[in-house]
Amino acid sequence: MPSGSNLIGSKSSREGSITFRSFDPGNFRELPIEFFEATNEEIEQACQLADFAAKDLRFISKNKISQFLRSVKSELVSSKDEILSYYTLESGLSEERGNLEFARTTNLLEDYAEFISSPDFCVNEREVGEPTLVKTSFGIGPVVVFGASNFPLAYSTVGGDTVSAWVAQCPVIVKSHPMHAGTSELVGNAIQRAVKQSGMPEGIFSLVNGKSHQVGEKLVQHPLVRAVGFTGSHKGGRALFDLASKRKEPIPVFAEMGSVNPVILMDASPEKLVDQARKLSESISNDAGQFCTKPGIIFVPEQHLAFFYIELQNRLKEAPSFLMIHPEIQKRYMERVDEVAKANNGEQWRYRSSNHPLSAVISVTAVSMSKFQANLTFHEEVFGPHVLLVGYASENELTNTLKLLGGQLTISIFCSDFNKLKQMSFMSVIPGMAGRIILNGVPTGVRVCKASNHGGPYPASTDSRFTAVGFDSWKRFSREIAFQNFPMESTREMFNENPLG
Amino acid sequence: MPSGSNLIGSKSSREGSITFRSFDPGNFRELPIEFFEATNEEIEQACQLADFAAKDLRFISKNKISQFLRSVKSELVSSKDEILSYYTLESGLSEERGNLEFARTTNLLEDYAEFISSPDFCVNEREVGEPTLVKTSFGIGPVVVFGASNFPLAYSTVGGDTVSAWVAQCPVIVKSHPMHAGTSELVGNAIQRAVKQSGMPEGIFSLVNGKSHQVGEKLVQHPLVRAVGFTGSHKGGRALFDLASKRKEPIPVFAEMGSVNPVILMDASPEKLVDQARKLSESISNDAGQFCTKPGIIFVPEQHLAFFYIELQNRLKEAPSFLMIHPEIQKRYMERVDEVAKANNGEQWRYRSSNHPLSAVISVTAVSMSKFQANLTFHEEVFGPHVLLVGYASENELTNTLKLLGGQLTISIFCSDFNKLKQMSFMSVIPGMAGRIILNGVPTGVRVCKASNHGGPYPASTDSRFTAVGFDSWKRFSREIAFQNFPMESTREMFNENPLG
Repeated sequence: MPSGSNLIGSKSSREGSITFRSFDPGNFRELPIEFFEATNEEIEQACQLADFAAKDLRFISKNKISQFLRSVKSELVSSKDEILSYYTLESGLSEERGNLEFARTTNLLEDYAEFISSPDFCVNEREVGEPTLVKTSFGIGPVVVFGASNFPLAYSTVGGDTVSAWVAQCPVIVKSHPMHAGTSELVGNAIQRAVKQSGMPEGIFSLVNGKSHQVGEKLVQHPLVRAVGFTGSHKGGRALFDLASKRKEPIPVFAEMGSVNPVILMDASPEKLVDQARKLSESISNDAGQFCTKPGIIFVPEQHLAFFYIELQNRLKEAPSFLMIHPEIQKRYMERVDEVAKANNGEQWRYRSSNHPLSAVISVTAVSMSKFQANLTFHEEVFGPHVLLVGYASENELTNTLKLLGGQLTISIFCSDFNKLKQMSFMSVIPGMAGRIILNGVPTGVRVCKASNHGGPYPASTDSRFTAVGFDSWKRFSREIAFQNFPMESTREMFNENPLG
Repeated sequence: MPSGSNLIGSKSSREGSITFRSFDPGNFRELPIEFFEATNEEIEQACQLADFAAKDLRFISKNKISQFLRSVKSELVSSKDEILSYYTLESGLSEERGNLEFARTTNLLEDYAEFISSPDFCVNEREVGEPTLVKTSFGIGPVVVFGASNFPLAYSTVGGDTVSAWVAQCPVIVKSHPMHAGTSELVGNAIQRAVKQSGMPEGIFSLVNGKSHQVGEKLVQHPLVRAVGFTGSHKGGRALFDLASKRKEPIPVFAEMGSVNPVILMDASPEKLVDQARKLSESISNDAGQFCTKPGIIFVPEQHLAFFYIELQNRLKEAPSFLMIHPEIQKRYMERVDEVAKANNGEQWRYRSSNHPLSAVISVTAVSMSKFQANLTFHEEVFGPHVLLVGYASENELTNTLKLLGGQLTISIFCSDFNKLKQMSFMSVIPGMAGRIILNGVPTGVRVCKASNHGGPYPASTDSRFTAVGFDSWKRFSREIAFQNFPMESTREMFNENPLG
């Protein structure tokens, strides 16, 4: 069971007086454990330990980092039952989803452990001559990672941000998401054991709690912190970006802030549309649509809009019942759904398959192109199981409408005639708009590999030049140093095999 | 001869009413040509043309970009005499330096042309499976480049920033440096001819003039501009960074803002010290020390400080006479030199080898470690031929003092015993401080290759994760897109051979 403590290096610590509790969605009640918000002193200690560890980590070999990642994996596995039972308790997500997310997390650790000890992981450039230069990667320094509300494992305490920062040889201070602080602590305990076993400097990992914004703000403003990873709302991500940019020494913030993930349907045949409605309904409703890559807007040929609208409703009614993760998320979702309905003169389809107070209200809003173009509320994300259908009359109308949208994580196109697709004028627009472009598939489900890209032009992320998912995500937390005229053998010895190996 | 026009795409344009003139340092007079500050309309046109070109450039092959770079080179060569004569006129830099800088520029174009058509230039990742992903690089969009005062060719109109943005397939709008707007225009004319000959979209290059800050500010705030490259002062770079961060859609600014480039001397033998004084005196005085990599602080073992101080003076007195580039730069230099002298109770060595009003006053200030530690004015750059000597009593004192300094472009160490160096405690500090670490060499002279790194922790640059010099510098202006389940052959055809080749 969690104790409600902050984890500062190798210690548990609860010095503060402000406490909060997490919530059990399934039983719609607060959980008994009190979590202690980190004090200024605890934050200071975590930052000092991280700064100290950052220096040590520069001289640690990739093989040792590999061993550490595997040790974290094995400690997670040994606590799997405890972690997963608290995960389902605090999130209301199913055991099945918990198992998937757990596997995603341990796979990430294993895949990265393998990747960084392989020759593919080339971090050196060497140019002999006058002068001889060797360029090599170093960690940027202490990284603050904010746990995501919707992924208590895979994008939280030991998710993509934390693991990629470790791969870059940076220490990490995790700010736990208050909605699943208990899951975070249990995961954190496993990490603490792995740190000890692998002989890593204790400052490589700390975990601090906070329900107020103050803890996060203090971390982002702390002079020893060198970078930030965040997954969440636009409001939250932008606030952290602004804080970091105003520092005396500005630091990079990679914030992945969600997206409406436009989907374009181009096929006319009813069989295709039926199949697409099925695929998209699953992508919209699964885990109550609480994904940054959930399809938010579907552009449908005008003459098929009515058919697709009904077909989609039929499929969504067959979806299993899912809970929203927290009453706060449910509240914000319903506010947005109401806003969208209001902008459409109240016209909106809603469906709720259970009477559980957190049961997700699935909803679909069909709007005309002119209404869509005129009202910005339609262009913004609705986080949860809502989708907007927009009919389009012509290719040009669609192209011009896409130009009105901001940056996106993904754009999906369903089109069975690739030669036709190539001729579409919007194909010159979408590369400027999105980080991933999908043909005949749904945007949910992000593969973790070397070719992954998860990010996109603002406001999908704060920096479209980096990815939050996949093997390249470590580059967010890495800088390079050129060594000029250094003797190779001795330098290798000095910096261990890592930097100059 | 320059006409004083802005170059907006393929046109020359001078619609404004505000004008300024550049200066002839050699004859200490204003030059007759009036340069027209770009109007809001001209800026708008340049941005619109660039946005249009950005879309086209996504579908242009690397081979065509290669051809374009070679065409720019050949047009520069055909105007070489005209460009170089205006270069020496406007900058006061020697013909020899002009030839070096010209060669650096044409080599850059040639090297990049070769690099991007070689297999080394890998911009694709492909991962077959479920789903198949191909990740490929695209230009981030229109890039604004600010010409640097101290490099009228190699870091201005067609310098490292512009060429690397083109390599990333981005259009460029150059804001000419007002001190050499004429050289910029002549270079710009050559580029315009190359654009036409290569069949590039005209918006791939525009050049706007402005002596006030307003032109640059408008460019950085323009919604169609997607990134900024800047080389210059901390004040200027930070102002642009702040403007860009406050935008509705923030954009990346890579500002290289100079550095004090600490040098550490460790050898005791007089012969070594004499040799080091010779090397460093050239690095300090060459072209009046107007380089971002000029050595600004030399840490000398306390017992050798007096000897080295005298030896350095003797060498500096033998240096050729150089002019400051502009009265403004001279004024700011003398103000800083006075500040440093004042902080040292007036004690400072100065030397001037000519009576020319812009002749550089070389100066050396020797300060005690305690004074150095206590006064921040000693920690900041003096742009021009000044160097600070600081005596150190012990390794620990040096290590602790280095920790007080901000991020640096370079740190140089003169030490003939590498085994001794490896044991030094400051070797754990300097990797966190600098972008390039040099053994037994001076920091001036930046090699352009794959292993180059020119940047560093703030305030050396605004983003230590990127380099302003070398083949990797294009990454500042590039983002990636993952294509999911696209048929390879057809996509290759659609996006030409570049993105998916």
